[in-house]
Amino acid sequence: MGSSTPSIPLPPALGSSRPGSLGARLRQVRRQSEVLIAGLEPEDLGLQGMAHASPPKWHLGHTAWFFEEFLLRPALERPDGCLAYEPADPRWRYLFNSYYDAVGARHPQPQRGQLSRPPIAAVLAWRERIGSGLDQLLASLDEQPPASAASSLALLELGLQHEQQHQELLQMDLLDGFSRNPLEPAYHEGPAGPEAAYERGWSRGHGANDGMGRQDAGGEPGWLAHPGGLAMLGHPGSSGGGTPAPLNPFHFDNEAPRHQIWLEPFALAKQLVTNAAYAAFIGDGGYRRPELWMSEGWAVRQQRGWQAPRYWRGADEFTLAGRRQRQPLAPVRHLSWFEADAFARWAGARLPSEAEWELLAAAAALPQAHGLLWQWTGSPYRPYPGFRSAPGAVGEYNGKFMSSQFVLRGGCFLSPADHAGPERYTYRNFFPPASRWMASGLRLARDGA
Amino acid sequence: MGSSTPSIPLPPALGSSRPGSLGARLRQVRRQSEVLIAGLEPEDLGLQGMAHASPPKWHLGHTAWFFEEFLLRPALERPDGCLAYEPADPRWRYLFNSYYDAVGARHPQPQRGQLSRPPIAAVLAWRERIGSGLDQLLASLDEQPPASAASSLALLELGLQHEQQHQELLQMDLLDGFSRNPLEPAYHEGPAGPEAAYERGWSRGHGANDGMGRQDAGGEPGWLAHPGGLAMLGHPGSSGGGTPAPLNPFHFDNEAPRHQIWLEPFALAKQLVTNAAYAAFIGDGGYRRPELWMSEGWAVRQQRGWQAPRYWRGADEFTLAGRRQRQPLAPVRHLSWFEADAFARWAGARLPSEAEWELLAAAAALPQAHGLLWQWTGSPYRPYPGFRSAPGAVGEYNGKFMSSQFVLRGGCFLSPADHAGPERYTYRNFFPPASRWMASGLRLARDGA
Amino acid sequence: MGSSTPSIPLPPALGSSRPGSLGARLRQVRRQSEVLIAGLEPEDLGLQGMAHASPPKWHLGHTAWFFEEFLLRPALERPDGCLAYEPADPRWRYLFNSYYDAVGARHPQPQRGQLSRPPIAAVLAWRERIGSGLDQLLASLDEQPPASAASSLALLELGLQHEQQHQELLQMDLLDGFSRNPLEPAYHEGPAGPEAAYERGWSRGHGANDGMGRQDAGGEPGWLAHPGGLAMLGHPGSSGGGTPAPLNPFHFDNEAPRHQIWLEPFALAKQLVTNAAYAAFIGDGGYRRPELWMSEGWAVRQQRGWQAPRYWRGADEFTLAGRRQRQPLAPVRHLSWFEADAFARWAGARLPSEAEWELLAAAAALPQAHGLLWQWTGSPYRPYPGFRSAPGAVGEYNGKFMSSQFVLRGGCFLSPADHAGPERYTYRNFFPPASRWMASGLRLARDGA
Amino acid sequence: MGSSTPSIPLPPALGSSRPGSLGARLRQVRRQSEVLIAGLEPEDLGLQGMAHASPPKWHLGHTAWFFEEFLLRPALERPDGCLAYEPADPRWRYLFNSYYDAVGARHPQPQRGQLSRPPIAAVLAWRERIGSGLDQLLASLDEQPPASAASSLALLELGLQHEQQHQELLQMDLLDGFSRNPLEPAYHEGPAGPEAAYERGWSRGHGANDGMGRQDAGGEPGWLAHPGGLAMLGHPGSSGGGTPAPLNPFHFDNEAPRHQIWLEPFALAKQLVTNAAYAAFIGDGGYRRPELWMSEGWAVRQQRGWQAPRYWRGADEFTLAGRRQRQPLAPVRHLSWFEADAFARWAGARLPSEAEWELLAAAAALPQAHGLLWQWTGSPYRPYPGFRSAPGAVGEYNGKFMSSQFVLRGGCFLSPADHAGPERYTYRNFFPPASRWMASGLRLARDGA
Repeated sequence: MGSSTPSIPLPPALGSSRPGSLGARLRQVRRQSEVLIAGLEPEDLGLQGMAHASPPKWHLGHTAWFFEEFLLRPALERPDGCLAYEPADPRWRYLFNSYYDAVGARHPQPQRGQLSRPPIAAVLAWRERIGSGLDQLLASLDEQPPASAASSLALLELGLQHEQQHQELLQMDLLDGFSRNPLEPAYHEGPAGPEAAYERGWSRGHGANDGMGRQDAGGEPGWLAHPGGLAMLGHPGSSGGGTPAPLNPFHFDNEAPRHQIWLEPFALAKQLVTNAAYAAFIGDGGYRRPELWMSEGWAVRQQRGWQAPRYWRGADEFTLAGRRQRQPLAPVRHLSWFEADAFARWAGARLPSEAEWELLAAAAALPQAHGLLWQWTGSPYRPYPGFRSAPGAVGEYNGKFMSSQFVLRGGCFLSPADHAGPERYTYRNFFPPASRWMASGLRLARDGA
Repeated sequence: MGSSTPSIPLPPALGSSRPGSLGARLRQVRRQSEVLIAGLEPEDLGLQGMAHASPPKWHLGHTAWFFEEFLLRPALERPDGCLAYEPADPRWRYLFNSYYDAVGARHPQPQRGQLSRPPIAAVLAWRERIGSGLDQLLASLDEQPPASAASSLALLELGLQHEQQHQELLQMDLLDGFSRNPLEPAYHEGPAGPEAAYERGWSRGHGANDGMGRQDAGGEPGWLAHPGGLAMLGHPGSSGGGTPAPLNPFHFDNEAPRHQIWLEPFALAKQLVTNAAYAAFIGDGGYRRPELWMSEGWAVRQQRGWQAPRYWRGADEFTLAGRRQRQPLAPVRHLSWFEADAFARWAGARLPSEAEWELLAAAAALPQAHGLLWQWTGSPYRPYPGFRSAPGAVGEYNGKFMSSQFVLRGGCFLSPADHAGPERYTYRNFFPPASRWMASGLRLARDGA
Repeated sequence: MGSSTPSIPLPPALGSSRPGSLGARLRQVRRQSEVLIAGLEPEDLGLQGMAHASPPKWHLGHTAWFFEEFLLRPALERPDGCLAYEPADPRWRYLFNSYYDAVGARHPQPQRGQLSRPPIAAVLAWRERIGSGLDQLLASLDEQPPASAASSLALLELGLQHEQQHQELLQMDLLDGFSRNPLEPAYHEGPAGPEAAYERGWSRGHGANDGMGRQDAGGEPGWLAHPGGLAMLGHPGSSGGGTPAPLNPFHFDNEAPRHQIWLEPFALAKQLVTNAAYAAFIGDGGYRRPELWMSEGWAVRQQRGWQAPRYWRGADEFTLAGRRQRQPLAPVRHLSWFEADAFARWAGARLPSEAEWELLAAAAALPQAHGLLWQWTGSPYRPYPGFRSAPGAVGEYNGKFMSSQFVLRGGCFLSPADHAGPERYTYRNFFPPASRWMASGLRLARDGA
Repeated sequence: MGSSTPSIPLPPALGSSRPGSLGARLRQVRRQSEVLIAGLEPEDLGLQGMAHASPPKWHLGHTAWFFEEFLLRPALERPDGCLAYEPADPRWRYLFNSYYDAVGARHPQPQRGQLSRPPIAAVLAWRERIGSGLDQLLASLDEQPPASAASSLALLELGLQHEQQHQELLQMDLLDGFSRNPLEPAYHEGPAGPEAAYERGWSRGHGANDGMGRQDAGGEPGWLAHPGGLAMLGHPGSSGGGTPAPLNPFHFDNEAPRHQIWLEPFALAKQLVTNAAYAAFIGDGGYRRPELWMSEGWAVRQQRGWQAPRYWRGADEFTLAGRRQRQPLAPVRHLSWFEADAFARWAGARLPSEAEWELLAAAAALPQAHGLLWQWTGSPYRPYPGFRSAPGAVGEYNGKFMSSQFVLRGGCFLSPADHAGPERYTYRNFFPPASRWMASGLRLARDGA
């Protein structure tokens, strides 16, 4: 994470992943949210480029709200509680609720940019109070009944993971907002994105191919084959006898239950599709040939006038480091599912299913799986067999979004390294098929081993 | 089919299914399209209630266009052809193309209702010419090379099935159009829908339950269990050694390839959910409780003000037979996927996957599978492993709609009996999750055998 | 009127204006509405091209409704009445009310095209019954108190004038609807519009100029000057001592009261702007130069992609007689106010005020004032000083539309000759400035005599 | 001005009007723009509540742009120029152009809130440079040819007046933006609006009536009568022999030419309509009775759900001083023209014409004409006879907005005192009839003296 925003001075410890205690991780992760806005102009704090994005200040308020709503308010209401915590103005519950119907009404997302108040200082002071409240809560866990303490720990971990998700969202949203400014502002001066890895020779080390899965000049195979058959998919959860290495014990509810599936033989490309390969698709009429597209995607393409990935600008692309020259061998990014699907069809291939992706990633056999770009799959986002949402508001976290979206796998250069890394290969991200503002790329798949 | 529109006099032969020769079936099916408009007022022929529907006259023109475009025009262009067929005004290709990009530009669907010309007489005369052309084509198949003849036969069969699909669409669209008229017109005087079966005692004969899958008073089990395991899904296609009885040899491309899957143990309700059960859901706040809904569905519900299924009007419902009293034990219909999904969640159940549905239907073990209502599944509409679209314009038939839709299975009281009957259990219908104007219902499923 | 639709056989008397008795005029005018649909295909009766237009059948129903609502229903409700009249189905009041809030709710205008029922036969039968009812009503006027009889006579005259307005609207709306059909249907085979007059040498007889008010080759002055000063504007109404010749005693409420105004010296062009002159405007970048346009008009132009008058198609234009070659010397038509205003600015002139127009028309000094095209003025449509709406629903006829519209003066080739002819020079027509589907043209004006 | 924002410390001189030299006035006025944002939070600088409003920072940038574009850039381009001025980044011309097509393309108004950059510091530094440039320009006027110097002086005065208009707009827009925040922020702590005058006894001093023009208890007449007749309207302009006292020699182009008109006898209410009177209108069903409304206004009312003036909240209203109790005797404000027009109809009166208003204001006979609220008239905003726009971009200032708007007269409590005071009685403000975010009120008129 830190490496993508080098202009913001980071405390030394922030780069390391998962320190021993939850309390320390909490402080570090929450601190990182504040680090992310340190280099912004005050006016940037309210910037909302589109209805589905949120201003940086709102992300800081909402992640604070999560802890107040799900941990501190309940703790205050406990008869035996002795928490010294002053909650925010009750109206802030309305302002900073994102989509939890069980919590109550909320400020409409398209109007978050209009919340010039509360000012950032008030939000930061609130975050400070919440930090102190969480410290007290953690210190008091020993005195709680075990079930209650376990529930609090799970919610704290969820709050931490939630905040890390918003750290990525904050940067996606900022890129969207800055992209609408003719001045082409830069968030930082560092490497613009995953191409940094390429600049450091990543692709050479992992088998350089042409980004379309074809074998490279050196003769290395461009595809990883798998014979298919019965396999297990998903996170085993906390029940049962442990988590297979290197799997992280944390998971979101939508990653479970672990269940059996049948797979036909398949192969996945070893590399993400590159800018150069995508440019060849464009050059071959990719945006003018409806036969390559889903009907719905073609309609969207026409309506919005898509001619290239979201942030391409001539030979450059717009990034969090401002406008930069596009690197041909860097993976193409900020694609909708419709574009990824059309590219795959053009290339005579297809998108992987999420099961195919996870199988190879679980075996640590999949290069470029983490830290570069989220990778579109051909799998609609639906519940795993036996999935149950948690009761109450927290159950709205993932379960109510299981229609009209597709799964992305992996993680991206904006994801905190300890949030979506190799030990989180069961992670299911999801977006509607027309979305392009997240750091999405694609990897090809084909039938047969 | 005939039984649903008794006010229109049908020739005796029309009720029977699949007579020996394709030519005879073609004539019967094409004749049936004309029978369907026989009782309409002339003004009804141009009625288009909404952007996604089409006027009756357009359906008759478009099904004619299909034969001209894919069979008669190519035949005219063959160097050795001697077809005596006068094509329509070239502009009709534009008017009556539905969504085939490979054929060229087309009149926008939302504006089909504005095509008061050509008048119906001109369309019917064209259909007559096409019939004669198809007769010639059939008679000449013996003289064609076998591959060419086989291709023509396949396209003729596809044209026939296509026309049957439009016969159902025509009636769905008409119901939508009539429903917008305060005079509440009736298309016919017969039974209004699938409840006709109930009036004839269907439910008693097949195990009356409460429509929520619970055991009925008589003690009969309300659920059909299946132990899961490895199973085959989809149509085997024409390749290979034959089609398992009672499967119809015809299939749409999206029903293939047949492939293996793994299923966990499950059970399906023996009966579709009834109006009475659905009324209980409403009475229990079904349309006021966001926790029962997908987030996308809840937004649609709020935006469109849904309070009940599309055609409920007080204690009545609007049908092709006009406004009729709602039958409590008849299956609830004209539901969106969002409503079906919310109901299932409320009932502590879920929607079946399409594999679960097909498995029991293939075993002839599933009551109420055909002839009543299309049944929503929880399966997004996506290609089967190894699916390939046909080359050319015909490849657009199904393959380009595989995003943001859900599969429905079975068939409905508006489907021609020989089109979506028991021998067509691999049939995959699909609609966007917010659609309500088709004859859709739902059947519950649950985990475990 | 008849001359514009020569394919429809008219009874000989229809061309003449205002026969002696109101009853005879009523019958003739109401008959003419039916003549206007005689040549249509049945499907055309429901054709509605856009939200602001209405299908032909609706016009016939609405003009019938006017008589039922304002004359026959009140007569039925009178205690001493003995009218033998069976009103329509009460739901028709809802279907055929146009915009009278005092009457009650109404079917939304954008959905009139969806009213395939009642069928035309039922509407025509209703019209027949209404005719008989009106005959009875007229016959009974002698027995009514004078005030009541006078009120009935005024309403009958208003209903007659109202029906004539809808005869013009019906044809405007039909032109709009047909224009959306790629088959370019023709309503009739006769002269397409006002250019018929030109073909007969009109312009030669009245001083041929270049349509921009400039003097023609023959040296005739192209402008009519007026010294300005105090003048009277508007219709004197029925009160007071008579109506100045040649003024028709009938007037709509918005034409009164007659009142004094002050005018600066001005001149009006003798001729309407021609197609040739308008083509020169286009050739000079008229649709690419924002400095010629009102800001609101320029935004509309950009949004809708205007490049020429509504019905221009290459060198042709679309007319009620189908696609016809455009006549350079015919007056340009189907212009929005924004286009007319921009043209005038380009030509170094301006639009006339409605007072300027009326002053010269009242003096019978204005060529091309009637029977060709409605003529945009620069006057917003607002009440005359002292204007009062009639009480009740009839008061909604004109008075509630007095915002955001501009006045047009004269009459057009679609207007019945006895409805908007020279004796009706106080007539105020009005449309929003972006409307283009009516038969509108423009005449230039300039300051100074 | 100062009195409305007492929380912001003002330099002593700012309250006084028009000091001797233009240079001093320029500095004062430009300084005042910066004073207006002094108390805001940084996030407020980018707040844009709706598409037609602009963020405070944008107002400061745009008023700077005006001077750069129309004075400093031309001066830099003069061959003999020796101006030491560094213009802004050329892209700022695009960012800060409001609507001048002749200047070139511009950033879309609805997206001004997305311009988090340039930061305020950069804008203020630019303003500083511009101030220095303007000082140089003023100092060099003596050396310019008289015509050029006069043109520069006129543009400087226009720039000053323009900036004053934006000072009012900034506050209107801020009120709109703050009104959308559930925290109900306050811009300042002072009197909330024109009611301050009432609190100080204004109404007693000027004849207290009930705000509907009726005579008050004390017997004072509530109406000011005028016999009508020929009169002069508009500003005489700089040509000719002077300006009638107390008329300010400055005027916008749309206030000229001065011209003669004829008026019927009329009377205007001495007082603006009060909150109490408006509450009576609401209580009498004002928002439920379509017969009181223009048809267009009624449609807007239904669509937007209007039930009261824009900022009424229960018994309070939202103001720049936050939520405050509504004062019954204060003039009702933030009304659309449609609401003003409906109220007048309900009261048995009408809106004044702009001529009626100006006639009495010119005679200094009209109480409450200035400093409280802009006053809707019944006059559409159209050019005076003989009006000509200035050539070039400056000609777009007023002239291109002369359709679909109504004139407001007077000035309001947000207008700088030396900008729209009694000596500016020919001032023509204008807004579309559905706008409500400006400080608008109404005064009744009636026919007859």
